[in-house]
Amino acid sequence: MDFSSFLTSLGTSFVIFIVLMVLFAWLSTRQGNAVVYYPNRIVKDMEPWEGGSRTRNPFAWIKEALSSSEQDVINMSGIDTAVYFVFLSTVLGILVLSGIVLLPVLLPIAATDDGVKKNEHTSNNTSNGTFSDLDKLSMANIEVKSPRLWAFLVATYWVSVVTYFLTFKAYKHVSALRATALMSNEVKPEQFAVLVRDLPNATSGQTRKQQVDTYFKSIYPETFYRSMVVTNNKEVDKIWGELEGFKKKLARAEAIYALSQGNGQGTRPTNRTGFLGLCGKKVDSIEYYNEKIKELTQKLEAEQKVTLREKQQGSALVFFTSRVTAALAAQSLHAQMVDNWTVTEAPEPRQLIWSNLTIKFYNRIIRQYVVYIVVFLTIVFYMIPIAFISAVTTLKNLRKLLPFLKPIVDIAALKTVLEAYLPQLALIIFLALLPKFLLFLSKTEGIPSGSHVIRAASGKYFYFIVFNVFIGVTIGGTLFASIKTIEEKPNSVFDMLAKSLPGNATFFLTFVALKFFVGYGLELSRIVPLIIYHLKRKYLCKNEAELREAWFPGDINYATRVPSDMLIVTIVLCYSVIAPVIIPFGVLYFALGWLVLRNQALKVYVPAYESYGRMWPHMQIRIISALFLYQVTMLGYFGVMRFYYTPILVPLPILSLVFVFVCRKKFYGAFCHTVLEVASQELKETPHMEQIFKSFIPPSLISEKQEDEHFEDALSQVSRSESSV
Amino acid sequence: MDFSSFLTSLGTSFVIFIVLMVLFAWLSTRQGNAVVYYPNRIVKDMEPWEGGSRTRNPFAWIKEALSSSEQDVINMSGIDTAVYFVFLSTVLGILVLSGIVLLPVLLPIAATDDGVKKNEHTSNNTSNGTFSDLDKLSMANIEVKSPRLWAFLVATYWVSVVTYFLTFKAYKHVSALRATALMSNEVKPEQFAVLVRDLPNATSGQTRKQQVDTYFKSIYPETFYRSMVVTNNKEVDKIWGELEGFKKKLARAEAIYALSQGNGQGTRPTNRTGFLGLCGKKVDSIEYYNEKIKELTQKLEAEQKVTLREKQQGSALVFFTSRVTAALAAQSLHAQMVDNWTVTEAPEPRQLIWSNLTIKFYNRIIRQYVVYIVVFLTIVFYMIPIAFISAVTTLKNLRKLLPFLKPIVDIAALKTVLEAYLPQLALIIFLALLPKFLLFLSKTEGIPSGSHVIRAASGKYFYFIVFNVFIGVTIGGTLFASIKTIEEKPNSVFDMLAKSLPGNATFFLTFVALKFFVGYGLELSRIVPLIIYHLKRKYLCKNEAELREAWFPGDINYATRVPSDMLIVTIVLCYSVIAPVIIPFGVLYFALGWLVLRNQALKVYVPAYESYGRMWPHMQIRIISALFLYQVTMLGYFGVMRFYYTPILVPLPILSLVFVFVCRKKFYGAFCHTVLEVASQELKETPHMEQIFKSFIPPSLISEKQEDEHFEDALSQVSRSESSV
Repeated sequence: MDFSSFLTSLGTSFVIFIVLMVLFAWLSTRQGNAVVYYPNRIVKDMEPWEGGSRTRNPFAWIKEALSSSEQDVINMSGIDTAVYFVFLSTVLGILVLSGIVLLPVLLPIAATDDGVKKNEHTSNNTSNGTFSDLDKLSMANIEVKSPRLWAFLVATYWVSVVTYFLTFKAYKHVSALRATALMSNEVKPEQFAVLVRDLPNATSGQTRKQQVDTYFKSIYPETFYRSMVVTNNKEVDKIWGELEGFKKKLARAEAIYALSQGNGQGTRPTNRTGFLGLCGKKVDSIEYYNEKIKELTQKLEAEQKVTLREKQQGSALVFFTSRVTAALAAQSLHAQMVDNWTVTEAPEPRQLIWSNLTIKFYNRIIRQYVVYIVVFLTIVFYMIPIAFISAVTTLKNLRKLLPFLKPIVDIAALKTVLEAYLPQLALIIFLALLPKFLLFLSKTEGIPSGSHVIRAASGKYFYFIVFNVFIGVTIGGTLFASIKTIEEKPNSVFDMLAKSLPGNATFFLTFVALKFFVGYGLELSRIVPLIIYHLKRKYLCKNEAELREAWFPGDINYATRVPSDMLIVTIVLCYSVIAPVIIPFGVLYFALGWLVLRNQALKVYVPAYESYGRMWPHMQIRIISALFLYQVTMLGYFGVMRFYYTPILVPLPILSLVFVFVCRKKFYGAFCHTVLEVASQELKETPHMEQIFKSFIPPSLISEKQEDEHFEDALSQVSRSESSV
Repeated sequence: MDFSSFLTSLGTSFVIFIVLMVLFAWLSTRQGNAVVYYPNRIVKDMEPWEGGSRTRNPFAWIKEALSSSEQDVINMSGIDTAVYFVFLSTVLGILVLSGIVLLPVLLPIAATDDGVKKNEHTSNNTSNGTFSDLDKLSMANIEVKSPRLWAFLVATYWVSVVTYFLTFKAYKHVSALRATALMSNEVKPEQFAVLVRDLPNATSGQTRKQQVDTYFKSIYPETFYRSMVVTNNKEVDKIWGELEGFKKKLARAEAIYALSQGNGQGTRPTNRTGFLGLCGKKVDSIEYYNEKIKELTQKLEAEQKVTLREKQQGSALVFFTSRVTAALAAQSLHAQMVDNWTVTEAPEPRQLIWSNLTIKFYNRIIRQYVVYIVVFLTIVFYMIPIAFISAVTTLKNLRKLLPFLKPIVDIAALKTVLEAYLPQLALIIFLALLPKFLLFLSKTEGIPSGSHVIRAASGKYFYFIVFNVFIGVTIGGTLFASIKTIEEKPNSVFDMLAKSLPGNATFFLTFVALKFFVGYGLELSRIVPLIIYHLKRKYLCKNEAELREAWFPGDINYATRVPSDMLIVTIVLCYSVIAPVIIPFGVLYFALGWLVLRNQALKVYVPAYESYGRMWPHMQIRIISALFLYQVTMLGYFGVMRFYYTPILVPLPILSLVFVFVCRKKFYGAFCHTVLEVASQELKETPHMEQIFKSFIPPSLISEKQEDEHFEDALSQVSRSESSV
C-alpha cells in the first residue's frame, strides 16, 4: 500500500464517520427513535433526554459523556461496565504516555537517518511497494548497528514501565471498586447462597433434599436457612415455553381484535391448528388459545409437582442467613473426598445455567480439556474448513450438489455476483459464527454461570484473533509471500522479517483507522438496530410487549468487544517502537471508543448480568500478554538490526512474567471469591430470606398456588418449626 | 561383581544381621537397658515388658509386632507413624503382587533363552565381569527382537496396574485415617486456632493486638475467642535459656552434694565463674547458681513485660470457640489484597517455628525460590565440593595449611591410616551433613510448622538421592566407564546402556541386601544409642532429668528414613522387569522394615509431632514418580532391544500423570485443610478455651505471676467482660 492509497482509505473512513455522526445527531432527536437511542434510560424509567428538551445541541452527548463520573456509569450500567472503562482508560493512558515520549524523540531520529536507501540488500527483497513514505518514519529507516538504536531500546523500556505502572494502578482501582460493590449494604440474593455440586449418592430411604439439609444443618447449625435441590427441568421448561408462547399469541390475537374493533367492525382473528399455522382446521384464535392455555396450565402444574418431587438431581443451592457464612462456605472444602460436595459461590439467579449444574466433577474436567483441544485445533487450522467451504460453494459444485438451485443460479446477472462473492461470503459467515461457536464450546465445559461462559469465550476469541489476524498477517504473510527467496538463501528470512514488520505497519494503521471510524460510527449511530426496529414496529409488533422486545438493546457484548480491543492493543503495542506513527491512531481508537461507549453505556445498553469486575484479571493478563509479545518481537527485531546491546532487553520479558505473578498473588484471589472483610460489612436491613430464596426459583417452576410443603419436595423447607430461622 | 563375591557379600551381611539379632535378644531383656529398648512405653508410664516378665522368649517381639493392630500403632505413636506403615505395607503389597506373577513367568523365559551369548557385539563391550550368572535370569539374556519380549511388556503393564490399584486404595485408607483422627471428640488445641500472617501496618494509635482483635471480632462476632500476637522473642528466649541452664546446673550441683553427703562427708561443689568454668574466681556452686537464678528470674520477668508490650510483630494466632469456624477461617481469604491477613491452619504448639511466623508474604516466596535454586545446584553439583574437600584434605595439603598438625601427622602408623581414609571421611561427613543442610534450607523458606519443614526436607533429599545414587550409578557410571567406546562409535551408547542396566542390577541387589540386613539389624539392636546411654549414665548424668535426657529416643526421623525407603522403591521398581530377581530382595527389605519398625514404633520412638498423615500425599506422589521413571526406563530399554511393539508402552507414563492428577484432585485438598464435615463432629466436652490458649504460649513467655491484663499486651484478652465467651 503506498502513501496516497493509505490517505485515500483514511479519508474515506473519515467521511463515512462524519456521515454517521450527522445521521446520529439528526436521528437521535426524533421522538420515535428514543427507544433505540435511549433504551437504558427508558428501562430505568427515566426521561430519555436529560432536562426533557430534545431540541438541543446535537453534540450535547459528548459533553454528557465527558462529564459523567464513574459512579454514574456504575449506577446506570453496573460494575462490569465501569471496569470496561477502566480498561479503556488504562490502555489510553499507556498509549498517551508512550506517545508523549516516543513521538517527539523517535520520529526525528528515524527521519534524519536513511537506512532505507542504504540497507540495499534488504530493499532488494521488497517487491510490492512496502517501501513507502511512512517507512521513513519507522525503525526500518535506521541503519543496521547504528548507535541511534539506543533511543529505540530505551523507548522499549519506557513503554513497558508505563504499562506495568498503569495496569498495576488500575488493578488496585478495580479491586477497590469490586470490594465497594460487594460490601454494599443492599441485599443481593447471590451473596446469601452457595452452589453445591457433586452430591454423593444418597443413602437409601433419603431424598436428595433430606441429604442436603441434614448435611448443611450439621455444619452450619445457626446460619443454615434452607436449600433448593436442582431438578431436571427439561420437561417442565418445554411445557412452560409452550404455555408462554400461547400466552403471547393470545395477547397478539386480542390486540388484533381490539384494533379491528377500533376500525369499526370487529373481526375475530382466526388461525389454523396444523403445522406452522398453514394447514389444519380453522379456529377462532382467542378461544383456541384460551383453551390451550387452560390445558397447558394444568399440565404444567402436574409436571411441576413431578419435577420437584421425583426429578431431583445431585446438585443444590444452599441459602444462609449470613453473608459471611456464605462467603466462608464457598471457599472451603466440605468433604474428605474433594470430588464430593463441591461448594462454590452462587452466581446471580439471572445468569445461572441450570442445565450445567448437574454435570459431575470429572465430567467437567474432561469436558474442559476436550474443549481446549477443540479450541486449539480451531485456532490453528481454522483456515482449512474455510478453504473447504469455499471450494464446495463454487457455483459449479453447488449446481452439482443441489440441483434444484439450477434455475436460480443460471440467471446471468446473479451468476456474476455469486461467483465473485461466494467464497468471501463463506469466510464472513464462518467468522460471524465463530463467537457463537466459542460461546457454545465454553458453555459445554460445564460452567454454571453466564458471565463466566462469556469470559471463557472471550479468552478463546482473544487467542484466535491474535494468532490468526496479528501473527497470521505479520509473520505468515511475509513468509508465504517470499517463500521462494528463503529457499534460495535461508539467511534472508531475518532481513525479510525486519523489512516486513514496518511494512505491515501501514496495513495495520489502515486497519485501526477503519475500525474506529467505521466501527464506532456504526456503534454510535445504531443504524442497523434502528432499521430493524422500525421494520418490526411497522409489520410485526401488535402490542406493547412485542414492541419492547423489538427495541430492547441487549448488553454491551464483552465476548467479542474485549478481544477486538485487545487485538488493537496488541497491534499498537507491538508497533509502538518500530513505527511510532501508529500510536496516535491507537490513542484515537481508545479515546473515541471511550467517548462513544460512554454514551452507549449510559443510554443504550442494558447489562444482562453483574459479575463485579471479574472480567478485569483477564483483561489485565491479556494486556501483559500483548506487552510480552511486543517485548519478544523487539528482542527479535533488535537482533535483526544487528544491534550489539540487544541482550539488554532480555530482562523485560522476565519482568513481565514476574509482574503477572505478583499481580496474580496480590489481587487475583479477591476476584475469585468474596473476601471476608468485605462480606462482613453490615447490611442496611435484615435480609428477607424468603424473597432471596424465591429469586432463585426458575420461572418454569414458580407455582401460582401456595406450595404444599413436603419434605421430599426440592423447594420445600426443612420443617415448619425452623422455617423462621 | 561376579556371582561368588555377590554371595560372599550377601553372606557377610546376613551373619552381621544374625549377630545383631542375638545381641538384641540378650540385651533387651536386661533391666538396666529397658530405657533404651522400651522408652516409648516408659514415657507413657507403661510396664516396659508386656505382662511384666522379662525372662521371656527372645523372639516374642516378633509375635507382638505381628499381632499389633493399626489402632495400637496410632495409640502408641500417632497417625503419622500409622501412615508410615501404610506406606511400607503398600510397597510390600506392590512388590509381592508383582513378584507372584513376574518371578514364575519371567525367570524361566529369560533362563531358557541365550541372548547373552548370541548378542555378540554387546558382550564384546562388557569389560569387567558385569556378565555374571545372575544376568542369565534377566532381560539381558533375551535375544533382541525376540517374541519372548511380549511377556516382559505385559509384565511392565502388570506392575503399573498393581501400583495404581494399591496406592489408590492406600490413599483412600489414609484419607479415612486422617478424617477419623481429625474428627475425634478429644479437644486438640490446634483445631481451635488459626495462624494469621502479613498484617498490614496498623493505623496510628492502634496496637497490633487491638488491630487483630477488632478485625476478627467484626468478621466472627460470635465465635472469636481471643488472639495472641506474635512477639519478637529473641531476647527473652536468650534469658530464659540462660536461666534454664543455671537451673540444670543447680540441680546437678545439689545432686553431687547429696551424693557426697551420702558418702559421709559433705563437700559442697565449687566452680569458677570465668570462661567455660576454667578460670576466674572460685565460688560455692549452689550459692552462686541460686543467686544467678534469682537475678535472671527478675530480668526475665522484666523482659517478658517489654516483649509482650513492645515487641509485637505483624503476625498472630487467633482462637475460636468452634472447630468449624477455625476450619472455615483457615481456608478463606480475609482481605481484598491477598498478601495481607493471610490466614492458615495453626500447627500444633510444639511444632510452631516462632522465628518464621513474622516473615512477610513476598519474602517467603523469594526465599522459596532461592532455596529451590540452591537445592537444584546442590543436587546437580554436589560432587564438586566433595572433590574439592578431598583434594584439600590430602595429608600433604593439611601439613601445609595447618602446620601445627605436623607432629601428629608424621607418626608413621597414623599416617597410613589417614592417607587411606581421609578422602572417604570427607565424603562421609559431607553426606551426613546433607540432611541437616536440607532441613536448614527448608526452615529458611519461612515454613511455620516443624512437620512441614521435615516434609520439605524429605522431598529435597528424595530428589538428591534418586538423582545421585540411582541415576548417577546407572547412567553416569556406565557412560564414564565406557566414554572411549562411545567416542569411537556413538551408536553403541544404547547397546552399552542395555547391557549395563542388568549389570548394575547386581550392584543394587547387594546394596538393598546390605541396607536391610545391616541397617535394620543396627536399628533393632540399638547398639549405638545403648553405648552412648551407658557412657553418659556412668560419667555424666547426676540426676533423674539428666538421665532421662540421655535415653530419650527422639522420633522416627522421617526426613531421611522416607527418602531412603523411596530409593529402594525406585531401584526395585526400575529393575522389577529387567531383572526380576531383585523383587524378593525388595520384599525382604520392606517386610523386615515393617517388622523392625513396628517394634520400634510401639516401644522405642516417641513422636515429636502429629501432622495427621500429611506426609502421605508426598509418599504417594514419589511412589508414582518412581513408577514413572520405571516406565520411561522400560520404554528406553525395549527400544534398545529393538522390539517393534515398544510404542504399546507409550500410554503408561501418560496414565501415570493422569493417575497423579486424579488422586490430587480427589484426595489432596483434604490433606491441605481440615474439611468441614470432619470439623463439624461433636466434641466430648466443651473445650476449655483458656487452656487451649495457654498451650500456645512459648515457655519463655510463661509468667509465674498472674498476668495483668492490659489491652496492649500481646497475650491479654479483649476485655474482661468478654473473656468468658
